[in-house]
Amino acid sequence: MYFAVAASYFAPVHLVAVVGEDFPAAERDSLAARGIDLTGLEVRPGRTFRWHGRYHEDVNVRDTLRLELNVFADFSPRVAEATRRVPYVFLGNIDPRLQAGVLDQFTAPILVACDTMNHWIEAARDAVEALLPRVDLLVVNDDEARLLSGERNVSRAARRILERGPKSLLIKRGEYGAILFSAGEVFAVPAYPLEEVFDPTGAGDTFAGGLVGHLAATGDVSHTNLRRAIVYGSVLASYVVEDFGARRLQTVSRDDIERRYRQFVALTEF
Amino acid sequence: MYFAVAASYFAPVHLVAVVGEDFPAAERDSLAARGIDLTGLEVRPGRTFRWHGRYHEDVNVRDTLRLELNVFADFSPRVAEATRRVPYVFLGNIDPRLQAGVLDQFTAPILVACDTMNHWIEAARDAVEALLPRVDLLVVNDDEARLLSGERNVSRAARRILERGPKSLLIKRGEYGAILFSAGEVFAVPAYPLEEVFDPTGAGDTFAGGLVGHLAATGDVSHTNLRRAIVYGSVLASYVVEDFGARRLQTVSRDDIERRYRQFVALTEF
Repeated sequence: MYFAVAASYFAPVHLVAVVGEDFPAAERDSLAARGIDLTGLEVRPGRTFRWHGRYHEDVNVRDTLRLELNVFADFSPRVAEATRRVPYVFLGNIDPRLQAGVLDQFTAPILVACDTMNHWIEAARDAVEALLPRVDLLVVNDDEARLLSGERNVSRAARRILERGPKSLLIKRGEYGAILFSAGEVFAVPAYPLEEVFDPTGAGDTFAGGLVGHLAATGDVSHTNLRRAIVYGSVLASYVVEDFGARRLQTVSRDDIERRYRQFVALTEF
Repeated sequence: MYFAVAASYFAPVHLVAVVGEDFPAAERDSLAARGIDLTGLEVRPGRTFRWHGRYHEDVNVRDTLRLELNVFADFSPRVAEATRRVPYVFLGNIDPRLQAGVLDQFTAPILVACDTMNHWIEAARDAVEALLPRVDLLVVNDDEARLLSGERNVSRAARRILERGPKSLLIKRGEYGAILFSAGEVFAVPAYPLEEVFDPTGAGDTFAGGLVGHLAATGDVSHTNLRRAIVYGSVLASYVVEDFGARRLQTVSRDDIERRYRQFVALTEF
Protein backbone atom coordinates (compact mmCIF):
# COMPACT_ATOMS: atom_id res chain seq x y z
CA MET A 1 0.00 0.00 0.00
CA TYR A 2 2.69 2.49 1.01
CA PHE A 3 4.68 1.80 -2.14
CA ALA A 4 1.63 1.95 -4.40
CA VAL A 5 0.31 5.22 -2.98
CA ALA A 6 3.74 6.90 -3.08
CA ALA A 7 4.47 5.72 -6.63
CA SER A 8 1.01 6.76 -7.81
CA TYR A 9 2.00 10.42 -7.44
CA PHE A 10 4.37 9.87 -10.34
CA ALA A 11 3.27 7.01 -12.61
CA PRO A 12 0.54 4.38 -13.17
CA VAL A 13 0.79 1.57 -10.62
CA HIS A 14 -0.27 -2.06 -10.95
CA LEU A 15 -0.47 -3.68 -7.55
CA VAL A 16 0.17 -7.44 -7.11
CA ALA A 17 -0.71 -8.46 -3.57
CA VAL A 18 -3.00 -10.49 -1.33
CA VAL A 19 -5.29 -9.39 1.49
CA GLY A 20 -7.79 -11.16 3.71
CA GLU A 21 -11.51 -10.65 3.91
CA ASP A 22 -10.92 -8.19 6.74
CA PHE A 23 -9.24 -5.68 4.42
CA PRO A 24 -11.36 -2.51 4.68
CA ALA A 25 -13.37 -1.56 1.61
CA ALA A 26 -12.53 2.08 2.29
CA GLU A 27 -8.80 1.35 1.91
CA ARG A 28 -9.42 -0.47 -1.31
CA ASP A 29 -11.53 2.41 -2.58
CA SER A 30 -8.89 4.95 -1.71
CA LEU A 31 -6.27 2.99 -3.67
CA ALA A 32 -8.62 2.76 -6.64
CA ALA A 33 -9.38 6.48 -6.35
CA ARG A 34 -5.68 7.18 -6.81
CA GLY A 35 -5.82 5.28 -10.12
CA ILE A 36 -3.94 2.26 -8.80
CA ASP A 37 -4.77 -0.86 -10.84
CA LEU A 38 -6.12 -3.46 -8.38
CA THR A 39 -6.55 -6.32 -10.87
CA GLY A 40 -3.66 -8.07 -9.15
CA LEU A 41 -5.00 -7.60 -5.62
CA GLU A 42 -6.30 -11.00 -4.53
CA VAL A 43 -8.76 -11.35 -1.68
CA ARG A 44 -8.44 -14.68 0.16
CA PRO A 45 -10.40 -16.25 3.01
CA GLY A 46 -8.77 -15.34 6.31
CA ARG A 47 -7.04 -12.32 7.75
CA THR A 48 -4.64 -9.84 6.17
CA PHE A 49 -0.94 -9.89 7.07
CA ARG A 50 -0.33 -8.10 10.37
CA TRP A 51 2.74 -6.74 12.06
CA HIS A 52 2.74 -5.61 15.67
CA GLY A 53 5.75 -3.71 16.89
CA ARG A 54 7.07 -1.21 19.32
CA TYR A 55 9.27 1.73 18.39
CA HIS A 56 11.95 2.88 20.77
CA GLU A 57 12.46 6.50 21.79
CA ASP A 58 15.09 6.29 19.04
CA VAL A 59 12.58 5.63 16.25
CA ASN A 60 15.29 4.04 14.15
CA VAL A 61 15.00 1.02 16.45
CA ARG A 62 11.93 -1.18 16.66
CA ASP A 63 10.97 -4.53 18.14
CA THR A 64 8.67 -6.94 16.38
CA LEU A 65 6.11 -8.07 18.95
CA ARG A 66 4.07 -10.31 16.68
CA LEU A 67 4.13 -11.19 13.01
CA GLU A 68 1.10 -12.87 11.46
CA LEU A 69 1.58 -13.93 7.86
CA ASN A 70 -2.10 -14.95 7.62
CA VAL A 71 -3.17 -14.99 3.93
CA PHE A 72 0.46 -14.24 3.00
CA ALA A 73 1.51 -17.69 4.24
CA ASP A 74 0.62 -19.48 1.04
CA PHE A 75 0.44 -16.60 -1.38
CA SER A 76 1.58 -17.48 -4.87
CA PRO A 77 1.44 -14.22 -6.80
CA ARG A 78 0.12 -14.38 -10.33
CA VAL A 79 0.83 -11.36 -12.51
CA ALA A 80 -2.00 -10.50 -14.89
CA GLU A 81 -1.22 -10.77 -18.62
CA ALA A 82 -1.54 -7.02 -19.18
CA THR A 83 0.82 -6.26 -16.31
CA ARG A 84 3.65 -8.53 -17.44
CA ARG A 85 5.06 -6.02 -19.89
CA VAL A 86 5.48 -3.14 -17.41
CA PRO A 87 9.00 -1.71 -17.56
CA TYR A 88 9.50 -0.90 -13.85
CA VAL A 89 9.15 -3.63 -11.26
CA PHE A 90 9.40 -3.30 -7.49
CA LEU A 91 9.62 -6.55 -5.56
CA GLY A 92 8.20 -5.79 -2.13
CA ASN A 93 9.45 -7.48 0.98
CA ILE A 94 8.17 -11.08 0.85
CA ASP A 95 9.80 -14.53 0.71
CA PRO A 96 12.66 -14.25 -1.83
CA ARG A 97 11.41 -17.43 -3.57
CA LEU A 98 8.11 -15.66 -4.20
CA GLN A 99 9.97 -12.55 -5.35
CA ALA A 100 11.83 -14.72 -7.89
CA GLY A 101 8.55 -16.29 -8.99
CA VAL A 102 6.99 -12.86 -9.51
CA LEU A 103 10.01 -11.61 -11.41
CA ASP A 104 9.85 -14.66 -13.74
CA GLN A 105 6.47 -13.45 -14.95
CA PHE A 106 7.68 -10.10 -16.31
CA THR A 107 8.76 -10.13 -19.94
CA ALA A 108 11.53 -7.53 -20.13
CA PRO A 109 11.66 -5.03 -17.27
CA ILE A 110 13.96 -2.03 -17.70
CA LEU A 111 14.54 -1.76 -13.98
CA VAL A 112 13.98 -4.21 -11.13
CA ALA A 113 14.11 -2.82 -7.62
CA CYS A 114 13.93 -5.15 -4.66
CA ASP A 115 13.42 -4.91 -0.91
CA THR A 116 14.11 -7.60 1.66
CA MET A 117 14.49 -7.88 5.44
CA ASN A 118 16.51 -9.53 8.21
CA HIS A 119 13.98 -12.35 8.50
CA TRP A 120 14.60 -13.54 4.93
CA ILE A 121 18.35 -12.95 5.02
CA GLU A 122 18.48 -15.26 8.06
CA ALA A 123 15.85 -17.81 7.03
CA ALA A 124 16.42 -17.97 3.26
CA ARG A 125 19.86 -16.52 2.56
CA ASP A 126 20.46 -18.72 -0.50
CA ALA A 127 17.23 -17.56 -2.10
CA VAL A 128 18.04 -13.90 -1.36
CA GLU A 129 21.51 -14.31 -2.87
CA ALA A 130 20.14 -16.12 -5.93
CA LEU A 131 17.88 -13.17 -6.58
CA LEU A 132 20.58 -10.47 -6.32
CA PRO A 133 22.09 -10.86 -9.83
CA ARG A 134 18.62 -10.24 -11.28
CA VAL A 135 18.18 -6.99 -9.37
CA ASP A 136 19.11 -3.53 -10.65
CA LEU A 137 18.54 -1.72 -7.37
CA LEU A 138 18.53 -3.43 -4.01
CA VAL A 139 16.90 -1.31 -1.31
CA VAL A 140 17.69 -2.27 2.30
CA ASN A 141 18.30 -0.54 5.60
CA ASP A 142 21.67 -0.42 7.37
CA ASP A 143 20.93 -3.39 9.64
CA GLU A 144 19.95 -5.51 6.66
CA ALA A 145 23.06 -4.43 4.75
CA ARG A 146 25.22 -5.48 7.71
CA LEU A 147 23.49 -8.83 8.03
CA LEU A 148 23.63 -9.56 4.30
CA SER A 149 27.31 -8.62 3.98
CA GLY A 150 28.73 -9.59 7.36
CA GLU A 151 30.39 -6.16 7.47
CA ARG A 152 29.68 -3.36 9.94
CA ASN A 153 31.26 -0.56 7.91
CA VAL A 154 28.75 0.72 5.35
CA SER A 155 31.25 1.07 2.47
CA ARG A 156 32.66 -2.43 2.94
CA ALA A 157 29.14 -3.81 3.34
CA ALA A 158 28.17 -2.16 0.06
CA ARG A 159 31.19 -3.53 -1.79
CA ARG A 160 30.44 -7.10 -0.63
CA ILE A 161 26.78 -6.82 -1.62
CA LEU A 162 27.53 -5.32 -5.04
CA GLU A 163 29.94 -8.23 -5.64
CA ARG A 164 26.92 -10.52 -5.34
CA GLY A 165 25.12 -9.03 -8.28
CA PRO A 166 22.85 -6.01 -7.88
CA LYS A 167 23.85 -3.08 -10.11
CA SER A 168 23.12 -0.55 -7.38
CA LEU A 169 22.51 -0.69 -3.67
CA LEU A 170 20.53 1.87 -1.71
CA ILE A 171 21.01 1.72 2.05
CA LYS A 172 18.37 3.54 4.08
CA ARG A 173 19.64 4.99 7.36
CA GLY A 174 16.47 6.27 9.00
CA GLU A 175 16.90 9.77 10.39
CA TYR A 176 20.36 9.96 8.77
CA GLY A 177 19.07 9.65 5.22
CA ALA A 178 20.22 7.23 2.56
CA ILE A 179 23.34 6.28 0.65
CA LEU A 180 23.56 4.81 -2.84
CA PHE A 181 26.43 2.67 -4.04
CA SER A 182 27.10 1.47 -7.56
CA ALA A 183 30.27 0.76 -9.55
CA GLY A 184 32.55 3.72 -8.90
CA GLU A 185 29.78 6.00 -7.61
CA VAL A 186 28.48 6.97 -4.21
CA PHE A 187 25.62 9.35 -3.48
CA ALA A 188 24.47 10.32 -0.01
CA VAL A 189 21.43 12.35 0.95
CA PRO A 190 20.41 13.34 4.48
CA ALA A 191 16.89 12.81 5.74
CA TYR A 192 14.68 15.87 5.93
CA PRO A 193 15.03 17.10 9.52
CA LEU A 194 11.62 16.86 11.19
CA GLU A 195 10.80 18.00 14.71
CA GLU A 196 8.30 15.18 15.07
CA VAL A 197 8.55 11.67 13.65
CA PHE A 198 5.07 10.50 14.45
CA ASP A 199 5.07 7.01 12.97
CA PRO A 200 7.93 5.61 10.89
CA THR A 201 5.90 2.55 9.79
CA GLY A 202 5.96 2.24 6.02
CA ALA A 203 8.67 4.87 5.52
CA GLY A 204 10.88 2.38 3.65
CA ASP A 205 8.17 1.30 1.21
CA THR A 206 7.12 4.90 0.74
CA PHE A 207 10.72 5.82 -0.05
CA ALA A 208 10.88 3.05 -2.65
CA GLY A 209 7.55 4.18 -4.11
CA GLY A 210 8.71 7.75 -4.67
CA LEU A 211 12.01 6.50 -6.06
CA VAL A 212 10.68 3.95 -8.55
CA GLY A 213 7.72 6.21 -9.36
CA HIS A 214 10.04 9.02 -10.44
CA LEU A 215 12.16 6.66 -12.55
CA ALA A 216 9.06 5.26 -14.24
CA ALA A 217 7.60 8.72 -14.85
CA THR A 218 10.78 10.01 -16.47
CA GLY A 219 11.80 6.79 -18.22
CA ASP A 220 15.40 7.65 -17.37
CA VAL A 221 17.50 5.20 -15.38
CA SER A 222 20.76 7.17 -15.63
CA HIS A 223 22.78 7.59 -12.48
CA THR A 224 21.98 11.31 -12.45
CA ASN A 225 18.26 10.62 -12.52
CA LEU A 226 18.60 7.85 -9.94
CA ARG A 227 19.99 10.52 -7.58
CA ARG A 228 16.95 12.70 -8.17
CA ALA A 229 14.70 9.67 -7.70
CA ILE A 230 16.32 9.02 -4.32
CA VAL A 231 15.55 12.59 -3.30
CA TYR A 232 11.90 12.08 -4.35
CA GLY A 233 11.87 8.91 -2.28
CA SER A 234 13.24 10.89 0.67
CA VAL A 235 10.58 13.56 0.14
CA LEU A 236 7.72 11.06 0.24
CA ALA A 237 9.21 9.27 3.25
CA SER A 238 9.53 12.61 5.07
CA TYR A 239 5.79 13.12 4.64
CA VAL A 240 4.57 9.65 5.60
CA VAL A 241 6.21 9.74 9.03
CA GLU A 242 4.33 12.93 9.93
CA ASP A 243 1.16 11.01 10.83
CA PHE A 244 -0.12 7.52 11.62
CA GLY A 245 -0.11 4.94 8.85
CA ALA A 246 -0.58 6.29 5.35
CA ARG A 247 -2.82 9.21 6.40
CA ARG A 248 -0.44 12.02 5.50
CA LEU A 249 0.63 10.21 2.37
CA GLN A 250 -2.96 10.25 1.13
CA THR A 251 -3.35 14.00 1.49
CA VAL A 252 0.01 15.22 0.22
CA SER A 253 -0.18 17.18 -3.05
CA ARG A 254 2.15 17.27 -6.03
CA ASP A 255 2.97 20.87 -4.98
CA ASP A 256 3.92 19.67 -1.49
CA ILE A 257 6.26 17.16 -3.11
CA GLU A 258 7.96 19.74 -5.33
CA ARG A 259 8.22 22.23 -2.46
CA ARG A 260 9.97 19.73 -0.24
CA TYR A 261 12.21 18.64 -3.13
CA ARG A 262 13.41 22.27 -3.29
CA GLN A 263 13.91 22.19 0.47
CA PHE A 264 16.18 19.19 -0.04
CA VAL A 265 18.21 21.26 -2.50
CA ALA A 266 18.47 24.05 0.10
CA LEU A 267 19.34 21.52 2.79
CA THR A 268 22.28 20.05 0.91
CA GLU A 269 23.76 22.61 -1.50
CA PHE A 270 27.11 24.23 -0.82
CA MET B 1 46.91 19.87 18.39
CA TYR B 2 44.33 18.42 16.04
CA PHE B 3 42.58 21.76 15.68
CA ALA B 4 45.82 23.68 15.19
CA VAL B 5 47.24 21.33 12.56
CA ALA B 6 43.96 21.19 10.61
CA ALA B 7 43.48 24.98 10.72
CA SER B 8 47.10 25.60 9.72
CA TYR B 9 46.33 24.28 6.23
CA PHE B 10 44.19 27.39 5.76
CA ALA B 11 45.31 30.26 7.99
CA PRO B 12 47.86 31.36 10.62
CA VAL B 13 47.20 29.68 13.96
CA HIS B 14 48.02 30.94 17.46
CA LEU B 15 47.80 28.11 19.96
CA VAL B 16 46.84 28.78 23.58
CA ALA B 17 47.34 25.62 25.62
CA VAL B 18 49.25 23.86 28.35
CA VAL B 19 51.34 20.70 28.27
CA GLY B 20 53.50 18.90 30.81
CA GLU B 21 57.23 18.30 30.73
CA ASP B 22 56.56 14.96 29.08
CA PHE B 23 55.27 16.59 25.88
CA PRO B 24 57.60 15.34 23.12
CA ALA B 25 59.92 17.89 21.58
CA ALA B 26 59.28 16.29 18.19
CA GLU B 27 55.56 17.10 18.43
CA ARG B 28 56.35 20.66 19.38
CA ASP B 29 58.75 20.93 16.46
CA SER B 30 56.23 19.56 14.02
CA LEU B 31 53.66 22.16 15.12
CA ALA B 32 56.26 24.91 14.77
CA ALA B 33 57.26 23.55 11.36
CA ARG B 34 53.66 24.08 10.22
CA GLY B 35 54.00 27.75 11.16
CA ILE B 36 51.79 27.44 14.23
CA ASP B 37 52.57 30.19 16.75
CA LEU B 38 53.48 28.46 20.02
CA THR B 39 53.96 31.59 22.14
CA GLY B 40 50.80 30.62 24.01
CA LEU B 41 51.87 27.03 24.64
CA GLU B 42 52.80 26.84 28.30
CA VAL B 43 54.96 24.02 29.63
CA ARG B 44 54.23 23.22 33.28
CA PRO B 45 55.82 20.80 35.75
CA GLY B 46 53.94 17.50 35.62
CA ARG B 47 52.31 15.38 32.95
CA THR B 48 50.27 16.38 29.92
CA PHE B 49 46.48 15.80 29.86
CA ARG B 50 45.69 12.19 28.99
CA TRP B 51 42.57 10.39 27.84
CA HIS B 52 42.33 6.61 27.74
CA GLY B 53 39.36 5.15 25.97
CA ARG B 54 37.99 2.19 24.11
CA TYR B 55 36.11 2.43 20.82
CA HIS B 56 33.31 0.00 20.11
CA GLU B 57 32.99 -1.93 16.89
CA ASP B 58 30.61 0.93 16.08
CA VAL B 59 33.31 3.62 16.19
CA ASN B 60 30.68 6.27 16.90
CA VAL B 61 30.54 4.86 20.43
CA ARG B 62 33.42 5.06 22.89
CA ASP B 63 34.00 4.51 26.59
CA THR B 64 36.27 6.71 28.66
CA LEU B 65 38.49 4.37 30.67
CA ARG B 66 40.57 7.04 32.42
CA LEU B 67 40.80 10.80 32.24
CA GLU B 68 43.85 12.55 33.73
CA LEU B 69 43.62 16.33 33.72
CA ASN B 70 47.23 16.59 34.98
CA VAL B 71 48.62 20.05 34.13
CA PHE B 72 45.18 20.99 32.81
CA ALA B 73 43.77 20.82 36.34
CA ASP B 74 44.83 24.34 37.30
CA PHE B 75 45.44 25.84 33.89
CA SER B 76 44.55 29.50 33.69
CA PRO B 77 45.09 30.44 30.06
CA ARG B 78 46.66 33.79 29.37
CA VAL B 79 46.41 35.08 25.84
CA ALA B 80 49.50 36.95 24.64
CA GLU B 81 49.04 40.63 23.83
CA ALA B 82 49.69 40.12 20.11
CA THR B 83 47.13 37.31 19.93
CA ARG B 84 44.24 39.21 21.54
CA ARG B 85 43.26 40.95 18.34
CA VAL B 86 42.84 37.80 16.22
CA PRO B 87 39.45 37.81 14.49
CA TYR B 88 38.66 34.06 14.65
CA VAL B 89 38.58 32.31 18.01
CA PHE B 90 38.01 28.62 18.68
CA LEU B 91 37.37 27.68 22.30
CA GLY B 92 38.55 24.09 22.64
CA ASN B 93 36.87 21.65 24.97
CA ILE B 94 37.92 22.69 28.49
CA ASP B 95 36.08 23.88 31.61
CA PRO B 96 33.48 26.44 30.40
CA ARG B 97 34.66 28.92 33.08
CA LEU B 98 38.13 28.80 31.53
CA GLN B 99 36.61 29.16 28.06
CA ALA B 100 34.83 32.32 29.28
CA GLY B 101 38.09 33.58 30.80
CA VAL B 102 39.92 33.02 27.51
CA LEU B 103 37.18 34.73 25.54
CA ASP B 104 37.34 37.78 27.85
CA GLN B 105 40.89 38.36 26.67
CA PHE B 106 40.07 38.83 22.99
CA THR B 107 39.32 42.39 21.94
CA ALA B 108 36.77 42.03 19.15
CA PRO B 109 36.55 38.63 17.50
CA ILE B 110 34.51 38.37 14.30
CA LEU B 111 33.61 34.76 14.99
CA VAL B 112 33.74 32.68 18.15
CA ALA B 113 33.37 28.92 17.75
CA CYS B 114 33.12 26.72 20.80
CA ASP B 115 33.31 23.03 21.62
CA THR B 116 32.19 21.35 24.82
CA MET B 117 31.46 17.85 26.07
CA ASN B 118 29.08 15.78 28.24
CA HIS B 119 31.37 16.12 31.24
CA TRP B 120 30.99 19.93 31.36
CA ILE B 121 27.31 19.91 30.49
CA GLU B 122 26.75 17.64 33.49
CA ALA B 123 29.28 19.15 35.90
CA ALA B 124 29.03 22.84 34.99
CA ARG B 125 25.78 23.35 33.10
CA ASP B 126 25.31 26.93 34.32
CA ALA B 127 28.75 27.93 33.08
CA VAL B 128 28.12 26.27 29.70
CA GLU B 129 24.78 28.06 29.36
CA ALA B 130 26.31 31.40 30.42
CA LEU B 131 28.82 31.04 27.60
CA LEU B 132 26.30 30.26 24.86
CA PRO B 133 25.10 33.84 24.14
CA ARG B 134 28.72 34.81 23.48
CA VAL B 135 29.21 32.04 20.91
CA ASP B 136 28.64 32.39 17.16
CA LEU B 137 29.04 28.71 16.36
CA LEU B 138 28.62 25.95 18.90
CA VAL B 139 30.14 22.65 17.74
CA VAL B 140 28.96 19.52 19.56
CA ASN B 141 28.18 15.92 18.75
CA ASP B 142 24.69 14.42 18.80
CA ASP B 143 25.01 13.02 22.33
CA GLU B 144 26.10 16.39 23.65
CA ALA B 145 23.26 18.14 21.81
CA ARG B 146 20.78 15.74 23.41
CA LEU B 147 22.21 16.23 26.86
CA LEU B 148 22.39 20.00 26.55
CA SER B 149 18.81 20.30 25.22
CA GLY B 150 17.04 17.42 26.92
CA GLU B 151 15.62 16.50 23.50
CA ARG B 152 16.29 13.29 21.57
CA ASN B 153 15.10 14.59 18.19
CA VAL B 154 17.90 16.51 16.50
CA SER B 155 15.72 19.35 15.17
CA ARG B 156 14.03 19.96 18.51
CA ALA B 157 17.40 19.72 20.26
CA ALA B 158 18.77 22.34 17.89
CA ARG B 159 15.85 24.70 18.45
CA ARG B 160 16.24 24.52 22.23
CA ILE B 161 19.97 25.14 22.04
CA LEU B 162 19.65 28.07 19.62
CA GLU B 163 17.11 29.59 22.02
CA ARG B 164 19.91 29.75 24.57
CA GLY B 165 22.08 32.03 22.51
CA PRO B 166 24.52 30.68 19.94
CA LYS B 167 23.93 32.08 16.45
CA SER B 168 24.57 28.70 14.82
CA LEU B 169 24.83 25.14 15.99
CA LEU B 170 26.79 22.42 14.25
CA ILE B 171 25.97 18.88 15.35
CA LYS B 172 28.54 16.25 14.40
CA ARG B 173 27.07 12.81 13.77
CA GLY B 174 30.17 10.66 13.29
CA GLU B 175 29.84 8.39 10.27
CA TYR B 176 26.57 10.14 9.34
CA GLY B 177 28.16 13.54 8.82
CA ALA B 178 27.08 16.83 10.30
CA ILE B 179 24.09 19.13 10.41
CA LEU B 180 24.09 22.90 10.86
CA PHE B 181 21.19 24.84 12.33
CA SER B 182 20.78 28.58 12.48
CA ALA B 183 17.77 30.90 12.34
CA GLY B 184 15.65 29.64 9.44
CA GLU B 185 18.44 27.58 7.87
CA VAL B 186 19.47 23.95 7.97
CA PHE B 187 22.41 22.40 6.14
CA ALA B 188 23.31 18.73 6.25
CA VAL B 189 26.38 17.04 4.83
CA PRO B 190 27.14 13.32 4.94
CA ALA B 191 30.48 12.00 6.10
CA TYR B 192 32.87 10.82 3.42
CA PRO B 193 32.29 7.06 3.18
CA LEU B 194 35.51 5.30 4.16
CA GLU B 195 36.06 1.55 4.11
CA GLU B 196 38.30 1.80 7.15
CA VAL B 197 37.93 4.17 10.09
CA PHE B 198 41.25 3.47 11.75
CA ASP B 199 41.16 5.86 14.70
CA PRO B 200 38.41 8.44 15.22
CA THR B 201 40.32 10.20 18.02
CA GLY B 202 40.59 13.91 17.31
CA ALA B 203 38.13 13.86 14.41
CA GLY B 204 35.93 16.47 16.10
CA ASP B 205 38.76 18.93 16.73
CA THR B 206 40.11 18.31 13.24
CA PHE B 207 36.66 19.06 11.82
CA ALA B 208 36.55 22.32 13.75
CA GLY B 209 40.08 23.19 12.59
CA GLY B 210 39.22 22.82 8.92
CA LEU B 211 35.99 24.72 9.43
CA VAL B 212 37.36 27.74 11.34
CA GLY B 213 40.54 27.67 9.23
CA HIS B 214 38.53 28.09 6.04
CA LEU B 215 36.44 30.92 7.52
CA ALA B 216 39.58 32.72 8.69
CA ALA B 217 41.33 32.23 5.35
CA THR B 218 38.41 33.65 3.38
CA GLY B 219 37.33 36.28 5.92
CA ASP B 220 33.75 35.47 4.98
CA VAL B 221 31.28 34.40 7.67
CA SER B 222 28.22 34.33 5.41
CA HIS B 223 25.94 31.34 5.67
CA THR B 224 27.01 30.22 2.18
CA ASN B 225 30.65 30.22 3.18
CA LEU B 226 29.88 28.53 6.48
CA ARG B 227 28.48 25.62 4.45
CA ARG B 228 31.72 25.39 2.47
CA ALA B 229 33.68 25.61 5.71
CA ILE B 230 31.72 22.66 7.09
CA VAL B 231 32.64 20.65 4.02
CA TYR B 232 36.32 21.55 4.54
CA GLY B 233 35.94 20.42 8.14
CA SER B 234 34.45 17.15 6.91
CA VAL B 235 37.33 16.74 4.45
CA LEU B 236 39.99 17.15 7.14
CA ALA B 237 38.10 14.84 9.53
CA SER B 238 37.85 12.20 6.79
CA TYR B 239 41.65 12.20 6.52
CA VAL B 240 42.52 12.18 10.21
CA VAL B 241 40.58 8.96 10.92
CA GLU B 242 42.59 7.09 8.27
CA ASP B 243 45.53 6.54 10.64
CA PHE B 244 46.48 6.65 14.33
CA GLY B 245 46.55 10.03 16.04
CA ALA B 246 47.43 12.97 13.84
CA ARG B 247 49.75 11.00 11.54
CA ARG B 248 47.67 11.26 8.39
CA LEU B 249 46.79 14.85 9.18
CA GLN B 250 50.47 15.77 9.15
CA THR B 251 51.07 14.35 5.67
CA VAL B 252 47.94 15.48 3.84
CA SER B 253 48.55 18.06 1.11
CA ARG B 254 46.52 21.05 0.02
CA ASP B 255 45.86 19.12 -3.21
CA ASP B 256 44.51 16.17 -1.22
CA ILE B 257 42.15 18.58 0.53
CA GLU B 258 40.86 20.11 -2.69
CA ARG B 259 40.51 16.70 -4.33
CA ARG B 260 38.39 15.37 -1.49
CA TYR B 261 36.36 18.59 -1.43
CA ARG B 262 35.43 17.83 -5.06
CA GLN B 263 34.58 14.27 -4.01
CA PHE B 264 32.16 15.76 -1.49
CA VAL B 265 30.52 17.67 -4.33
CA ALA B 266 30.22 14.42 -6.32
CA LEU B 267 28.92 12.60 -3.24
CA THR B 268 26.07 15.02 -2.62
CA GLU B 269 25.02 16.72 -5.86
CA PHE B 270 21.73 15.88 -7.53
